[in-house]
Order: sequence, then C-alpha cells, then structure tokens
Amino acid sequence: MEAQKQTTMVVFSGDLDKAMASFIIATGAAAMGNRVTMFFTFWGLNILRKEQHVPVQKGFLEKMFERMMPRGPGKLGISKLNMGGMGRTMMKHIMKKKNVASLPELIQLAKELDVEMIACTMSMDVLGIKEEELADGLKFAGVATYLAEAEQSRVNLFI
Amino acid sequence: MEAQKQTTMVVFSGDLDKAMASFIIATGAAAMGNRVTMFFTFWGLNILRKEQHVPVQKGFLEKMFERMMPRGPGKLGISKLNMGGMGRTMMKHIMKKKNVASLPELIQLAKELDVEMIACTMSMDVLGIKEEELADGLKFAGVATYLAEAEQSRVNLFI
Amino acid sequence: MEAQKQTTMVVFSGDLDKAMASFIIATGAAAMGNRVTMFFTFWGLNILRKEQHVPVQKGFLEKMFERMMPRGPGKLGISKLNMGGMGRTMMKHIMKKKNVASLPELIQLAKELDVEMIACTMSMDVLGIKEEELADGLKFAGVATYLAEAEQSRVNLFI
Repeated sequence: MEAQKQTTMVVFSGDLDKAMASFIIATGAAAMGNRVTMFFTFWGLNILRKEQHVPVQKGFLEKMFERMMPRGPGKLGISKLNMGGMGRTMMKHIMKKKNVASLPELIQLAKELDVEMIACTMSMDVLGIKEEELADGLKFAGVATYLAEAEQSRVNLFI
Repeated sequence: MEAQKQTTMVVFSGDLDKAMASFIIATGAAAMGNRVTMFFTFWGLNILRKEQHVPVQKGFLEKMFERMMPRGPGKLGISKLNMGGMGRTMMKHIMKKKNVASLPELIQLAKELDVEMIACTMSMDVLGIKEEELADGLKFAGVATYLAEAEQSRVNLFI
Repeated sequence: MEAQKQTTMVVFSGDLDKAMASFIIATGAAAMGNRVTMFFTFWGLNILRKEQHVPVQKGFLEKMFERMMPRGPGKLGISKLNMGGMGRTMMKHIMKKKNVASLPELIQLAKELDVEMIACTMSMDVLGIKEEELADGLKFAGVATYLAEAEQSRVNLFI
C-alpha cells in the first residue's frame, strides 16, 4: 500500500506573481492526486484577507499594518515591474486576454480541490490580523502543524 | 537497486544573484550524480533569453514587457544593492577576480552535465516570449511536467 | 530502524522577516527531533555577522560591500514596508510586546538545539567576509556539503 502523495508550501510572499505561482502549483498537485497543504505566513496572509473592512478591535500599530498592507488578492502588487500598480494592471489584463485563471479563481479552485489552507497564528498575532478578517474555510495553526505535514511530503517549497 | 537521485528547482526569480545560486546548486547536484530539472517560470525566463533581438510578431503589451525585462544573463540585476546596475558590475568584477564561474559559464556547464531546462509555457504566453527568443536546447512544458519530476525528487527548491 | 529525520535550508536572503521565518522553522524542526542544517549563502551571511567591526585585511570592493551590508541580526531590514527602517522598528516593537522571540534569541535557541549552521565559503570569498567576522560556532563549507545533507532530508527549503 502506497501512502498518499503530499505537497506542502510555505507561502511567505504576498506578491501577486508569487501567489499565482503558488496556487498554480498547489492546484496542479491536487489535480494529480496529491494532498496539498499551504501554510500562509507573514505577507502571505494578505492573499487571504477579505476585501471589505472588518470592524475589529486593534491597537495603534496593528491599525497601521492593516492600512499599509494590501487587502486580499485584488490588491496585491507584483514583485518586479509593479511601477505603482501599472505592471500589475498590465499583467492582469494580459492574463485575462490569454484566458489564464485569475488569482481569485485559482483560490476558489484550490478550495474545490480540498487544498488545505492554514493561516499562521503567530504571524496573525504579530501583524494584528484577526480570524474574521480572513477568507472563510481556513485552518488556524502554528509552525508545528506545518512541520508535521512537511515531514510527510515529498515536495516542500518556500515561496 | 536504488533509483537515481533527483533534484528539481522552480526558478521564478530573474535576479542575477538568485540565478547564480540556482545554477551553482544545479551543477553541483548534477556533478554528484543527480538527475536535475530546472523549471523556469515568470521572471526566471529572462535568464534564458537570447541577448540579441529576435524579430517575432507581438502585441502591444507583449512588446512593452519585452522592452522592460532584461534580455539574457548579461543584463540581469541583483536582488540587493543593485544601485542602478553598479552593484551588479561590482559583483561581476569581484567574481571574475576570484575566479568564480560567471552565469553564462554556469549555464554552459549545466548543459554539458545534462541538466534539463524547461521553460514554462504558460509564463511564456503571459509575458509574450516566443520559443525562438530563448536559448537553444530547452524543453517547453507546463506545471504538470514539473510536478511529475518533483514527485520523484528528494530535493525540491523554489528560487 | 528508522533513519533520523532531516531538514535543510538554504538561507539566501538577508531580510529580517525571512531570517525570522527560517529560524522559526529550523528551531521548530529541531525541537521535533529533526537534524537541521542551515546553509547561509549570499545576503544570508549578513545574519551571522558580528555586530562590532573586526579588523581584517580587505580589498577596496570588499570594503565597500562590508560597509553597505547590514552587520548582524540587529541591522537587517524587512523585505516589505521597511520604509528606511521604520517598518523594521515597528515589527520589532510589536514582536517584543507580543512576546515573540527576537532573531538573536532564535539564533541562540538554534545553537542550543544543535542546529548546524554552515557559512558558504564561496559567498564569503565573493563578498569579502572573513571567518573572524562571523558568529562563533559555525562550520565553513561549500555547496557539495549542503547537497550531501539535502539528499538525506525530507524537508528542503530555499529562503
């Protein structure tokens, strides 16, 4: 009996292009029968933020981080040639024209393929992000949970 | 009978320093008897661009990307302290002085060691890069091909 | 008899946030019984620099790199929202308030947990960094040593 194949990713980056790459790999691996776990930490949490403002109690620094960080997949910049958002707009436009799935579509597909998405609780604490500010259907856990999955996985990536 | 050892890398970054790191690891692993696959995606494709302009049919946005992205290993910047190219020049100068192989030399060595280099067709489509604009001897494939190799590999990196 | 579990990381980045992520994963894996090897290369070497100036013989370009690169964990910037060091100060402040271990504390913990830290000799040569400028207790080796560990490891990350 062969154990199920597993893939894990640490999604540290909150750049649109790296987020796209991580979800393309995750959904591809899930479609090929892998159990896939994505562990969102630091800036990667921004990929999962709800687009609308959620009223929660925050301290001063937490409010500053909230305002400075992009809220959800539609607001992410790209890691190169972003040029104040122009590069991002160009890339989105060209992807739509070429029928490449958008990031929200890839996230939806990942959910349908049962990709496990874990939000790093320590990073949430540091950046002042509350559970209700993040997308539905996530798990909330720390690095030990990620490592337990990673040890079972053949493919491990840090993105 | 032991299966051959395998190493795969997703080369997402087009920075000179990260490109150097990926080829140093790739050629090292190949020299140690590994089957090595490098999957070039997004900005990583710029590492493989031919230095001369290749006349191909492109749309407006594709032409803009072509002009803004570095053409080949000689034009890449470094991820830190690039300072408009001065950091890159410093680093190249010092590497030459210390007899460290240059990026074009490492790419050549990788070819001689049968490192498999795959250009990601989806990224080529999005960035408007055509096969004839890239170095010779590449394979062209998508994420499924990468994942099939990755599942066989002990060492998997995202660079 | 089961072989001991192993984890390796290439720490390429010298950003505070990525350095924190790498040491959180490393100490977590070590606490879970893994043999852990961290291979510090390029900008990642700055994490290991001693804070005080160490008088060593250097060439002109080596001196320039020395001055431009951050000296030790206290001087690293963060990869996003650094804003000339303000983002770093905010993040350190908030981490202290939330009782998250600081980077120097994580490095100390890693040493106590016998995490093996290797400084990449080729990168040291290129950046002009001498052994006496780096923290105590390191090993000095090249990519072949890293790869030999990586081949034995289930979890391999490039950070």
